[in-house]
Amino acid sequence: MTILFNKDKEFDLIAVGRACIDLNAVEFNRPMEETITFQKYVGGSPANVAIGSSKLGLKAGFIGKIPNDQHGRFIEQYMSNVGIDTSNMVIDNDGHKVGLAFTEIKSPEECSILMYREQVADLYLEPAEVDEEYIKRTKILLVSGTALAQSPSREALLKAVKLAKKNHVKVIFELDYRPYTWKSKEETAVYYTQVAEQSDVVIGTREEFDMMENLDHEGVNEKTIKDLFEHSPELVVIKHGVEGSFAYTRSGETYRGKAYKTKVLKTFGAGDSYASAFLYALVSGKDIETALKYGSASASIVVSKHSSSDAMPTVEEIEKLIKGNNTI
Amino acid sequence: MTILFNKDKEFDLIAVGRACIDLNAVEFNRPMEETITFQKYVGGSPANVAIGSSKLGLKAGFIGKIPNDQHGRFIEQYMSNVGIDTSNMVIDNDGHKVGLAFTEIKSPEECSILMYREQVADLYLEPAEVDEEYIKRTKILLVSGTALAQSPSREALLKAVKLAKKNHVKVIFELDYRPYTWKSKEETAVYYTQVAEQSDVVIGTREEFDMMENLDHEGVNEKTIKDLFEHSPELVVIKHGVEGSFAYTRSGETYRGKAYKTKVLKTFGAGDSYASAFLYALVSGKDIETALKYGSASASIVVSKHSSSDAMPTVEEIEKLIKGNNTI
Amino acid sequence: MTILFNKDKEFDLIAVGRACIDLNAVEFNRPMEETITFQKYVGGSPANVAIGSSKLGLKAGFIGKIPNDQHGRFIEQYMSNVGIDTSNMVIDNDGHKVGLAFTEIKSPEECSILMYREQVADLYLEPAEVDEEYIKRTKILLVSGTALAQSPSREALLKAVKLAKKNHVKVIFELDYRPYTWKSKEETAVYYTQVAEQSDVVIGTREEFDMMENLDHEGVNEKTIKDLFEHSPELVVIKHGVEGSFAYTRSGETYRGKAYKTKVLKTFGAGDSYASAFLYALVSGKDIETALKYGSASASIVVSKHSSSDAMPTVEEIEKLIKGNNTI
Amino acid sequence: MTILFNKDKEFDLIAVGRACIDLNAVEFNRPMEETITFQKYVGGSPANVAIGSSKLGLKAGFIGKIPNDQHGRFIEQYMSNVGIDTSNMVIDNDGHKVGLAFTEIKSPEECSILMYREQVADLYLEPAEVDEEYIKRTKILLVSGTALAQSPSREALLKAVKLAKKNHVKVIFELDYRPYTWKSKEETAVYYTQVAEQSDVVIGTREEFDMMENLDHEGVNEKTIKDLFEHSPELVVIKHGVEGSFAYTRSGETYRGKAYKTKVLKTFGAGDSYASAFLYALVSGKDIETALKYGSASASIVVSKHSSSDAMPTVEEIEKLIKGNNTI
Repeated sequence: MTILFNKDKEFDLIAVGRACIDLNAVEFNRPMEETITFQKYVGGSPANVAIGSSKLGLKAGFIGKIPNDQHGRFIEQYMSNVGIDTSNMVIDNDGHKVGLAFTEIKSPEECSILMYREQVADLYLEPAEVDEEYIKRTKILLVSGTALAQSPSREALLKAVKLAKKNHVKVIFELDYRPYTWKSKEETAVYYTQVAEQSDVVIGTREEFDMMENLDHEGVNEKTIKDLFEHSPELVVIKHGVEGSFAYTRSGETYRGKAYKTKVLKTFGAGDSYASAFLYALVSGKDIETALKYGSASASIVVSKHSSSDAMPTVEEIEKLIKGNNTI
Repeated sequence: MTILFNKDKEFDLIAVGRACIDLNAVEFNRPMEETITFQKYVGGSPANVAIGSSKLGLKAGFIGKIPNDQHGRFIEQYMSNVGIDTSNMVIDNDGHKVGLAFTEIKSPEECSILMYREQVADLYLEPAEVDEEYIKRTKILLVSGTALAQSPSREALLKAVKLAKKNHVKVIFELDYRPYTWKSKEETAVYYTQVAEQSDVVIGTREEFDMMENLDHEGVNEKTIKDLFEHSPELVVIKHGVEGSFAYTRSGETYRGKAYKTKVLKTFGAGDSYASAFLYALVSGKDIETALKYGSASASIVVSKHSSSDAMPTVEEIEKLIKGNNTI
Repeated sequence: MTILFNKDKEFDLIAVGRACIDLNAVEFNRPMEETITFQKYVGGSPANVAIGSSKLGLKAGFIGKIPNDQHGRFIEQYMSNVGIDTSNMVIDNDGHKVGLAFTEIKSPEECSILMYREQVADLYLEPAEVDEEYIKRTKILLVSGTALAQSPSREALLKAVKLAKKNHVKVIFELDYRPYTWKSKEETAVYYTQVAEQSDVVIGTREEFDMMENLDHEGVNEKTIKDLFEHSPELVVIKHGVEGSFAYTRSGETYRGKAYKTKVLKTFGAGDSYASAFLYALVSGKDIETALKYGSASASIVVSKHSSSDAMPTVEEIEKLIKGNNTI
Repeated sequence: MTILFNKDKEFDLIAVGRACIDLNAVEFNRPMEETITFQKYVGGSPANVAIGSSKLGLKAGFIGKIPNDQHGRFIEQYMSNVGIDTSNMVIDNDGHKVGLAFTEIKSPEECSILMYREQVADLYLEPAEVDEEYIKRTKILLVSGTALAQSPSREALLKAVKLAKKNHVKVIFELDYRPYTWKSKEETAVYYTQVAEQSDVVIGTREEFDMMENLDHEGVNEKTIKDLFEHSPELVVIKHGVEGSFAYTRSGETYRGKAYKTKVLKTFGAGDSYASAFLYALVSGKDIETALKYGSASASIVVSKHSSSDAMPTVEEIEKLIKGNNTI
């Protein structure tokens, strides 16, 4: 099965939400207290997906808010340099900052992130700054759950989704749950459900779907998709870590994707690289089964490298890995 | 045409949102600066509708939050005394207060309200305090727009609406727009649209629908209903002040209700008394045209009296006024 | 002993801080839940002292912040009508409200207050709104502790005290401790100490001095005055309820004032009426012992009446009660 | 003239206030947008002074608040490693973060800092976390103005100053004005004046003294010291950049210190290294004129190096530079 996109739209994908900075430990395999040097990369889930897609050849745009400071300008320049349209990135004039993520890589199994997310510009995107004319021009609107965590970004996202639906733009919802910023699990569940029910494609880990359903135990995929398929979604992808991912269609098909063997450096960036390649494959008209392979291969490549955004692979790298067929 | 309700449900109506205190000027026809004495009444749109419906004989319940202070206890006792089930009124333990409205009645045409709405308990209702088992038991869930103005009350309301739909409870949305508390018109439009599209019946003034559509000019009823009937609503009531109100059904009928002549003391409470009697008539199986008369008659009675809640009329008073047929 | 004031100053007293509204139960000797009617009076400690002093014939001014709404205008008009100079009362343009105090009079022994103090205008007085030229013109600057509870009113008060000292204006500090608004006892102690050490006269109850010293038990007057007399104060008045009050001078004298018998209606307003008459006597050149009698007599009169501000007595009433010599 | 310190005290100096992290551009002489690598150092004025003093051989302690995260632990370990007593560094349990300063070095003349100071742990030090027994044990309490910018750190500092004075500990006030966090110039002036008047030694740039005096033009040193010498200060040091610094004593002496020639890399850290060496000299019993030389020499050394804290010089380096006598 393939997903049909509106060929007349100029952009393949417009992502909306946060664009931040990752400060990755240069000296790794040690606690961050002993790391002295950090390297700066663009980060943030929707920014990473836009970068990854753009590197794979999709025509991508971005809606987000950045301050007019050194970090904000770096982000805009980097994204623009990889080919992303940044005409709808809005400048924050209220003193908000770029969010930061210091990554600590103790070992491939022990990675953690020290976040700076207080008063970050991305969460101050206003609904009035989301432009219907811009959204009209894309096949896919990619929304990321973290942008729902706080007003006014929350309302900007709800408005973007509404405009996408009105203009026959496919809404793809990357759950991208991060505990900081959210005030309660109930609140998370309310907005995740609200947006998931209005989306065409929903992608997340099993744990993220559990947040959406406000469960305190692991949920059941069949129950999740039954509820969602009563509303807008036509495709739901649920990721189960090393066990691979499952794609369910409204018409009743189920596909399983397997992870590729790799030498893991860290776990960051897996989800974003997965989404980039999965969307690339769907937009290119490949069937869902193949798209799952693209997603898995791309994730396997990124977890073996130092950054998330800079390390996004090319189509050739992905297809070479798929051809090797060396799955876990 | 009549609306069909689930006869098996124990409650006719459960209202959710604010219950406050009105302090009405005892000496009126003068500016408030010269008023020395104030009388205390229960106020707040959903509380008034619950009180009005209860006086008309409906079985009503209420979901809301009140502090454990003298004002909070007064509200609970008054509502309980008129027959409302208050088992789901939650006590606030975080120092929030009951909202206050000092009313100024300079003349029938010049009424204004001085509001105290900072850190009010009603806006701190948590989603976890909304109980699915309770909502299941009612024919109608009445939601009022003001409860959407701020978190966590906003999420509590969104959750209540979702639970009502899941349990085949009719959702009636009284737009009840009040400018305080809302941060921007865009924000208002986002949530009003979100809830209106999920409701079965939407009631408001033309100005309130303009807020929902984020218009800066007077909107057109036909455009409003066209958009809403693409989603859940089956009945939309748009009030045009002295010109009367219009009821539109999804099946294409339009009804017009006229206002009854009365000696106006003040304008407060008109909307809430309208909603009480309109809902009473619908639940009693009367057709929409008759329900509009009940609403108009009830509103005419309340605007001629000193309070909003205490002055809610009986069925006899309403039917007597309708029989007189003395419309504007 | 008498306190010497600068005779060349035009005002006897300028008070700085809050001017609010009291809503006093018309039906008393019952819980507030059963009170339906409330009467409106000007309230707030420094406003009451200005009103009381003005009624006794002192030339008084007021520095404070009020909104441009019905309650704000009522306060300004009332204070102006009793002869207070209101030229330095600043209008709040940021939507803050007048503070409210609903009084409940269950019995003479059981009085309580339900406060509305969220985002109140008086706590938003800015340091830039305190004018040195105005402060220069008074014999006494009366500061009340509650104005220290929050920024920017806190800084406005600290600035006013500094300007008073610079211009040889006597600073009289009414501790006036109210638990709401303050974040912690430590914070209270820090600012109370800061201001008390810079004042000429400090007046409060024993419990209020305990707050200043951050004690969790009853403190000892001798210790309190020993610490204060190492700094600016020359007179310290410590009130012990029905046991009367003690006045200590830096030069070593101690005076005791006794309470007068009266039929108590409620306890509100006792402190403010005490301060008004005590200051009136001091400014009139009476000795401290006599001033204590004026304070006690004035307090006894106010606690027998319904309001705090409106009930402030005349000189004749006070002197008649003193003459009767009917102390507890 | 020399300043006399209490020889019986165990610590030479206890600093109170912020300990943060500097992220210094590894690639410099370019805008930060083009810098990819950053090096991590301990930063923050009072932390730098404690580190600098400790390296010069003084026995130093620190009172401050840090989170229990990778950055917080790094700070504590670094400070402890250079010999500072960290027993009174308090752990923040409310999710506050370490403040960050990204430094940009475009050229020796064009340096700027990108600050992250939202919800930083150092500004959440509580007055209850300042221990009188600890303060008793030091000759000098060094307070830095930035800690006054916000509650509760502000009250913690006011309390520390009060305790120092009560226990005959010299209070040295480094004005250390930073525009972020402060709400208004009036507010800054109120607290800077409050603390300066209670200090024994006040050190700052001419611009910082202008903030203290709330001037919008350059103030006059003679006026500044006249006002301060009416209160506690006995020594006031006013720095005029490349023109050198002036030290004024209450007894009427004036000393001038000159800057030493150096190859400037950046301007950061000059003030802190100045204070460290100046205090070292004073505590060592050197006269004020000599102490000014130590301060200037230390500043000249630090501005030629990459970090602020790590680059703090030894006594030998300082004395060698002084001996060279190569002043500007």
